[in-house]
Amino acid sequence: MNSPLPARLAAELSTLLGDGWRTDANERLTYGYDNSRRQALPDAVALPRTREQVLALVRACRVHRVPVVARGRGTNTTGASVPVAGGVVVSLERMNRIVEMRPGDRCAIVEPGVLNGDLQAALAPHGLFWPPDPTSAAFSTVGGNLACNAGGPRAVKYGASRDNVLALTAVTGAGELIVCGTATTKGSTGYDLHRLLVGSEGTLALIVEASLRLTPAPGARRALRAVYRDVSSAAAAVARLMAQPATPSMLEFMDAHAVRLARDVGGADLPADAGALLMIEADGDPQTLPHEIQALMQAAAGEGLVMLDDAADPAAREKLWAARKALSPALRTLAPGKINEDVVVPVSRIPALVDGVQAIAREAALPIVCFGHAGNGNLHVNLLFDPADAGQSQRAQAALSRVFALTLSLGGTLSGEHGIGLAKREFMPQAVTAPTLDLMRQLKGVFDPDGILNPGKLLP
Amino acid sequence: MNSPLPARLAAELSTLLGDGWRTDANERLTYGYDNSRRQALPDAVALPRTREQVLALVRACRVHRVPVVARGRGTNTTGASVPVAGGVVVSLERMNRIVEMRPGDRCAIVEPGVLNGDLQAALAPHGLFWPPDPTSAAFSTVGGNLACNAGGPRAVKYGASRDNVLALTAVTGAGELIVCGTATTKGSTGYDLHRLLVGSEGTLALIVEASLRLTPAPGARRALRAVYRDVSSAAAAVARLMAQPATPSMLEFMDAHAVRLARDVGGADLPADAGALLMIEADGDPQTLPHEIQALMQAAAGEGLVMLDDAADPAAREKLWAARKALSPALRTLAPGKINEDVVVPVSRIPALVDGVQAIAREAALPIVCFGHAGNGNLHVNLLFDPADAGQSQRAQAALSRVFALTLSLGGTLSGEHGIGLAKREFMPQAVTAPTLDLMRQLKGVFDPDGILNPGKLLP
Repeated sequence: MNSPLPARLAAELSTLLGDGWRTDANERLTYGYDNSRRQALPDAVALPRTREQVLALVRACRVHRVPVVARGRGTNTTGASVPVAGGVVVSLERMNRIVEMRPGDRCAIVEPGVLNGDLQAALAPHGLFWPPDPTSAAFSTVGGNLACNAGGPRAVKYGASRDNVLALTAVTGAGELIVCGTATTKGSTGYDLHRLLVGSEGTLALIVEASLRLTPAPGARRALRAVYRDVSSAAAAVARLMAQPATPSMLEFMDAHAVRLARDVGGADLPADAGALLMIEADGDPQTLPHEIQALMQAAAGEGLVMLDDAADPAAREKLWAARKALSPALRTLAPGKINEDVVVPVSRIPALVDGVQAIAREAALPIVCFGHAGNGNLHVNLLFDPADAGQSQRAQAALSRVFALTLSLGGTLSGEHGIGLAKREFMPQAVTAPTLDLMRQLKGVFDPDGILNPGKLLP
Repeated sequence: MNSPLPARLAAELSTLLGDGWRTDANERLTYGYDNSRRQALPDAVALPRTREQVLALVRACRVHRVPVVARGRGTNTTGASVPVAGGVVVSLERMNRIVEMRPGDRCAIVEPGVLNGDLQAALAPHGLFWPPDPTSAAFSTVGGNLACNAGGPRAVKYGASRDNVLALTAVTGAGELIVCGTATTKGSTGYDLHRLLVGSEGTLALIVEASLRLTPAPGARRALRAVYRDVSSAAAAVARLMAQPATPSMLEFMDAHAVRLARDVGGADLPADAGALLMIEADGDPQTLPHEIQALMQAAAGEGLVMLDDAADPAAREKLWAARKALSPALRTLAPGKINEDVVVPVSRIPALVDGVQAIAREAALPIVCFGHAGNGNLHVNLLFDPADAGQSQRAQAALSRVFALTLSLGGTLSGEHGIGLAKREFMPQAVTAPTLDLMRQLKGVFDPDGILNPGKLLP
């Protein structure tokens, strides 16, 4: 049961935050959900403008042992920002300044609430970009991206959030302001705390400032579409593509289900008999790009290739990506319920994963559609079912357990870019050994001795 | 004072390790130094062959509160592997197997004692390499590279050790075997422990296995040599070179002192009036490399450029690098004593760093020679002095403090790739805020509750 906030705390935070302190039911409702479709009601919502306010807030909440749940824009899919234990949701939407641009240092210093898309727009005139490109980029925050270690298609060449941050300033659950790392591209000064905070889902500290590692924007992009007879032919091509030096800037996979969906529902121009599809993109200098495309075409060719298109002009490229983007909405036409996971396996184990998932789908008598970031072995496994049907719901949950067990047996892990949150918390003991999990719990205890930060998430 | 080992512990470890247990004075002497020229005598040396032996050893030492100091090949320059509190030095030289090669997954699984150079040789037939390339590569171990977060010239394009590891298995000071990360190129499953272990200098855990992230080897390399009128022209060129998309595979800087030394003592073919020199290398596909070299030449050109050579053939390239390699030995001709630091600043602050260092050198009346990895802002600042001269030694130490203070004031940090060890331990409170340092101490307490792992290192 959520207990209402202690009156003294509420008064203190109201004074601290002014119009950034909200306790009316409407606001609490609005800040209580996320894209996992889970929901819980916080006792209050805080909208701080400064790191000093965040610090004072955490200290005050610690005195009263009141939960503090950091929030970007709630686009995560795991329930990580749902305040299941009540307390104060801290929305960082007002801390959205780009503090400093340093193009010569390939670095931008930002507050956590800046939108990924707004940052990219601000970087473009400098010829730079920040690599993480989750589908939610237009409306998700940099702080949220960091909290979940968000990735996206580009991660295959440029890494995910954790690979693209130089330093973080954060407020721990102990109510201390810590400065982790420096805004330099190299560092070996003590323990690497900032990468530890990335992906910790607000359970260790609240990020109040980030120094981001930027990358020069490529001058051109070109895409390929490769259709294969079956999944194993496509997966073999993925391994070939990743073993040669021209690393694709995107390398997306669709299984036969996903291809059919993209064609029939999304209206994409795709062959009827495709067993699997790869969407390959290269970026770079306009003058050398044709050569890289040639190298990728060579690697894509091989046993089981049915068709290989080179989308040389931007329109053709857009058409190609439209098919991929059509997928998520199209899934909803198959069944009202969807469990969208983002398991990862070593690239060489993709065929075993996809085959195993289809066997699980047959036994569960439910459609499972696989697509995603093949170059990282990071597949979105979508279990489709009708939540109103108790039998289907039960079979979907059982199938999910088996998908995770399969993934782990292939040397993979639960999540590549979404994180754990509530959705995968109970599976952690299967993915992480007991002494390692115990160590994670102890680390949490150091950062957050009273367990007030985002309770109930990540750790079982 | 070093206390001898408890007899019961010595007997237990002797039984555990057989011929891998050494207590004679010669062996203890051999394993008590490192490349910092510091030295201390351990009570015993252990040469385990298996992770089970490492686990049993740490558990036994913990019972008796005896220090455990992990050791690669002792090439580090900070005293990190010197057993200042006695105890057992654990040399991992016998755990030197390459456990598994997975070219399709761009991954190799290795024991910690494998030499960096041996690993590279084993990877070459697969067309892959492991990016960290410290000068010591031929005789330093992968485990040691990870412990120090070693870098090297290639880090500017490919990252340092921390950026090139997927998973680690390690034994904590609590005597637990932990498995951190998975051998996949993406992961967002709980706290990121493996990057925390990288650079922790054996103070948190002993690495017993590493899954390394590999990169496809480029087909060709080409080098440029750019001479500038002064440091600020060279530094401006560094910023230009790093702001465009053709990232160099090496970008090395030499100040006027270093150029003179390389010419006069190393016999390098360099102009007498060079104010600063950049050595620029690109790697990639033989067909696109000329274009990248052109882009780099364009970025290198600008105000203050005196000379720009394109060393197209391998012999010319080798000659260019010979000048760089001639530097370290040449320094010894200037003075018998050398303090070699590896501070880092944002690239745009290189001119301020070099100017400031020269001002410090003038006031200290001691030569300071700067060269290093300009693309990362990671400069080796070499303070030269005669250790037999008390005044010079004192002035060198005072100058060192000022170099660190200058670096920190420019937004930089103490170390880019060497680590902290003993050498920079006392400067940590200047580089890291008090609450952050306190948190590091508490994290150390979780991994190593009795403080037996490499005591006296990294944390003041």
